[in-house]
Amino acid sequence: MRKKRITIEDVALEAGVHASTVSRALNPGKRALVSDVVAARVAATAQRLGYTPDPVAAGLRTRRSATIGILIPDIANPLFPPILRGIEAALAEAGYTAIIANTDNDALRARDALERLAARRVDGVILATVSRRDPLLDRCRKLGLPVVLVNRSTGGGATSAVLTDDEAGAALAVRHLALLGHRAIGHVAGPQRLSTGAGRRSGFVAARRAVGGESGPPPIAEAASYGIEAGAHAAAALLAAHPRITAIVAANDLLALGCYDEARRRGLACPRDISITGFNDMPFADRFDPPLTTVRIAQRAMGVEAARLLLAEIENPRSPKREIKLQPELVVRGSTAQPRGPSLTVPRRSR
Amino acid sequence: MRKKRITIEDVALEAGVHASTVSRALNPGKRALVSDVVAARVAATAQRLGYTPDPVAAGLRTRRSATIGILIPDIANPLFPPILRGIEAALAEAGYTAIIANTDNDALRARDALERLAARRVDGVILATVSRRDPLLDRCRKLGLPVVLVNRSTGGGATSAVLTDDEAGAALAVRHLALLGHRAIGHVAGPQRLSTGAGRRSGFVAARRAVGGESGPPPIAEAASYGIEAGAHAAAALLAAHPRITAIVAANDLLALGCYDEARRRGLACPRDISITGFNDMPFADRFDPPLTTVRIAQRAMGVEAARLLLAEIENPRSPKREIKLQPELVVRGSTAQPRGPSLTVPRRSR
Repeated sequence: MRKKRITIEDVALEAGVHASTVSRALNPGKRALVSDVVAARVAATAQRLGYTPDPVAAGLRTRRSATIGILIPDIANPLFPPILRGIEAALAEAGYTAIIANTDNDALRARDALERLAARRVDGVILATVSRRDPLLDRCRKLGLPVVLVNRSTGGGATSAVLTDDEAGAALAVRHLALLGHRAIGHVAGPQRLSTGAGRRSGFVAARRAVGGESGPPPIAEAASYGIEAGAHAAAALLAAHPRITAIVAANDLLALGCYDEARRRGLACPRDISITGFNDMPFADRFDPPLTTVRIAQRAMGVEAARLLLAEIENPRSPKREIKLQPELVVRGSTAQPRGPSLTVPRRSR
Repeated sequence: MRKKRITIEDVALEAGVHASTVSRALNPGKRALVSDVVAARVAATAQRLGYTPDPVAAGLRTRRSATIGILIPDIANPLFPPILRGIEAALAEAGYTAIIANTDNDALRARDALERLAARRVDGVILATVSRRDPLLDRCRKLGLPVVLVNRSTGGGATSAVLTDDEAGAALAVRHLALLGHRAIGHVAGPQRLSTGAGRRSGFVAARRAVGGESGPPPIAEAASYGIEAGAHAAAALLAAHPRITAIVAANDLLALGCYDEARRRGLACPRDISITGFNDMPFADRFDPPLTTVRIAQRAMGVEAARLLLAEIENPRSPKREIKLQPELVVRGSTAQPRGPSLTVPRRSR
């Protein structure tokens, strides 16, 4: 059974001050309005009585809960924790905290999570989940809820977003492989309903043309999702249709792990028989066998920037929408090498 | 600027029904009390007007928010996503959802997150963060907040908890190494303020005695945290003090990765020169170089059980406290092998 809730008046009575003083003393944004001595006495009294400021009552007064909701699409993808870390660090500076909801890439769950966060009066949301033309944004607008997108965009520009230059990232991978001597380079693309999938694909196509890859339509297979198994399926389709491929640019690191699996299934050693690149440089990418050559995106910085944009929009709802694109960089590790010469016979290394 | 909030009365007026009917129609637990036609009309009206049920007002009526708070200690540790998945699956069955807060193993942040969740009227909390004798539990009791512990316990038994039999898990690792022929087995222990650190350590000590390890005090170094770098530091201390060690039982998988790093720094090949075991079988443990032999804990099942225990306590606050211990299992991969015979000279494999 819940005990009787301690109210702000109980604390005020006990500390010998007015309730509004208690409110100010316990609000980090207004603490400066009361003396240190009073603030300390109120805090000690509140703690002793077990008083928790009622954010709803406080929200009705200040219209702020100092809480931000974050929707992430896949809690098992190690890409997102560093983004969350960045968000949390920037929020903490402003006295805000985050509550997180996982949507498992499910539009209905995303919608439900958004409603619950809005109903709990979060001051704004950061969405890492959106697809291109996502109805979630209309819903945010209807709710009057400030929103910033991170990592994925809707492509509209009507919402502030912090993204990676996905085209440039894919080009880095293609040029790296071309410089190693690869001519038959394929792409395991991400879902094309997501901006990252579309951007990396078009970056791949353009860069392949620029480096003078083989003629004919570009060898591409689209993965159904950003997961390891989806990557293995797509790699199987790609290699079946284009058996002469010597290198694969995968649209993210989990897809690249799927390519590892499919290569192994076919008896192809990476990087001796086939080079594979990832995208994101997620945690542990340097630990894989072989360590993954990948395109590093500025995960933490992305989170920091997204939080700052959101705080600015909460402060001033009329601030212009901004799209920030961060430049990725190539990280060369053990999963890429020169292609085997077609006439050379290279003995298998002993294991 | 936020728009004027649509109220339940607005929906009632528009749909031509009483407000209490709107409330019932939009509450999954009470929908059966109104006709399907009315429920559909109310739902359509609510959607058109952009009405979100106010969970606080609803909470005052039903005393339920159908939302559970989860505190996790380290969002970057891949151990926790599968536990969260289990929690979310069991909650979804009951119409509940989770909101997650990350504490970064910081007691102050954990306290702050708990207050915010409680203030947002979550119906209960699942804590994956507790240390032994954690003041957070007193606070939950004061707030009248149902609570279940997962993975880590306070050791008291006054709170329901779903745990792994950590002693048994450490024994599995020690026996595996002993069967391979190792006699000089060391332990990189987890933080002893955490139940997992303490339980795995005592399991190691007991099992080492049982398999007749070398005499003298057991070779143990305690890591300052469950992180890769902390594991490397502890491994360095362990190997400096006990240079004859041929195998290390690490108290979790991240610590085992730290042992990999320290072994490499010393020019020791794993498993040829030194065998290393982890604990948890976190995602990607099979992808490392070498693939990690580890003690698998029932991550998803742990989450499912914790959610069910919590829902039972919310339903009936007088239900007896329960502690569920799940049995771990050994997963043998590439990081363990027979020790090199002391008189044999084994040539380094070419790389």
